[in-house]
Amino acid sequence: MELYLQLTQFYQDYAAHVDRADWDAWIEMFTDDCTYSVQARENHERGLPMAALSLDGKGMLKDRIYGITETIFHDPYMQKHIVSAPRIISHSAELIEAQANYAVFRTKYDGIAQVFNVGRYIDRIRPTDEGLRFESRLCIFDNDMILNSLIYPI
Amino acid sequence: MELYLQLTQFYQDYAAHVDRADWDAWIEMFTDDCTYSVQARENHERGLPMAALSLDGKGMLKDRIYGITETIFHDPYMQKHIVSAPRIISHSAELIEAQANYAVFRTKYDGIAQVFNVGRYIDRIRPTDEGLRFESRLCIFDNDMILNSLIYPI
Amino acid sequence: MELYLQLTQFYQDYAAHVDRADWDAWIEMFTDDCTYSVQARENHERGLPMAALSLDGKGMLKDRIYGITETIFHDPYMQKHIVSAPRIISHSAELIEAQANYAVFRTKYDGIAQVFNVGRYIDRIRPTDEGLRFESRLCIFDNDMILNSLIYPI
Repeated sequence: MELYLQLTQFYQDYAAHVDRADWDAWIEMFTDDCTYSVQARENHERGLPMAALSLDGKGMLKDRIYGITETIFHDPYMQKHIVSAPRIISHSAELIEAQANYAVFRTKYDGIAQVFNVGRYIDRIRPTDEGLRFESRLCIFDNDMILNSLIYPI
Repeated sequence: MELYLQLTQFYQDYAAHVDRADWDAWIEMFTDDCTYSVQARENHERGLPMAALSLDGKGMLKDRIYGITETIFHDPYMQKHIVSAPRIISHSAELIEAQANYAVFRTKYDGIAQVFNVGRYIDRIRPTDEGLRFESRLCIFDNDMILNSLIYPI
Repeated sequence: MELYLQLTQFYQDYAAHVDRADWDAWIEMFTDDCTYSVQARENHERGLPMAALSLDGKGMLKDRIYGITETIFHDPYMQKHIVSAPRIISHSAELIEAQANYAVFRTKYDGIAQVFNVGRYIDRIRPTDEGLRFESRLCIFDNDMILNSLIYPI
């Protein structure tokens, strides 16, 4: 039960950090040797490697954030994540495997909220002395038509 | 608390099975004498019987799945369910009455995710030796304009 | 844990009352000296006072409901709230500070469900002898283009 509550808060913290574009807090949710990727469901299910975003290690996460905040020319937008309760697949003292469905709504300057990305998080989470950390987070999305504008992490 | 966690996992398992189109796992979540229906809110609130889908007993669930997978000519689509935390209405050793809001997003081959069906699950759930089982699940939806394409269970 | 469960039920009760347009039950979820407001994220983040709706004290909540049900000429619509798990910010015996993301879907008589309002609840909740009560609920929304038709509480 304690684990479930901790995991739920961890998931909601993640959503809050990304929605606020608090990228430093986002990076700190991962282990140093983490994997983060955003991939179409079809590719994931067929075991194909192509992904919209695929980052290995905290250094690449920092790089991506630097790109977003300093170099990529893009139309800013706001995100709002609705994340379901976690579904715990397995857990031990070293590793939690869990999943959750998500829907991300995007609002641009025109003020209209749109369904932006819907999918499933597939997570490996490591308990550490500083709290839970993502060893890997895969964002497996159903829709694949708006990726040219996927700028921020999901 | 234990019940709440068990129920939450049960609800998220349901979403995962339906989203993956794992129909065998879906069927096994129901009791033999189950009721499953998908009905417009207006009809439900007026006590009218007409429903988009109304299945009585596990045999009819199997029939429907056979229809979907073997006989109905239709455009396939993917579903993604976002299901809220359960709202427990009452519970005893024999029966749990609970409800939850849901939003189902559909993605067709064009790759665009759309709001497909939004509503409330109204459930009667029986604890059994093999875990929780739906005695009845009513999917009461607000929107009623896309039913000609409702193929899969909600 | 007990608190978390109580809070989750409270949030889902809120969604259920508003979705059913059970305004008496909605009003009873607030303290006498409550604040309820619905405000664009941009204004909230800049500390600007302008809000789509801003009510102080239970009397103003009752007034608003009287307006909705008796005097405002409007197109009725149905709401469906998907509310995430609460993120507990702080809690003591007198006060709980918590937040949750929400997506509200609106369905008009044409039967089509639309993304209506997406945002974050920022709450101060007081435990009382009759259960939890909102001392303040701020609904901070991302999208700001459909407010001319915001009639009911979010």
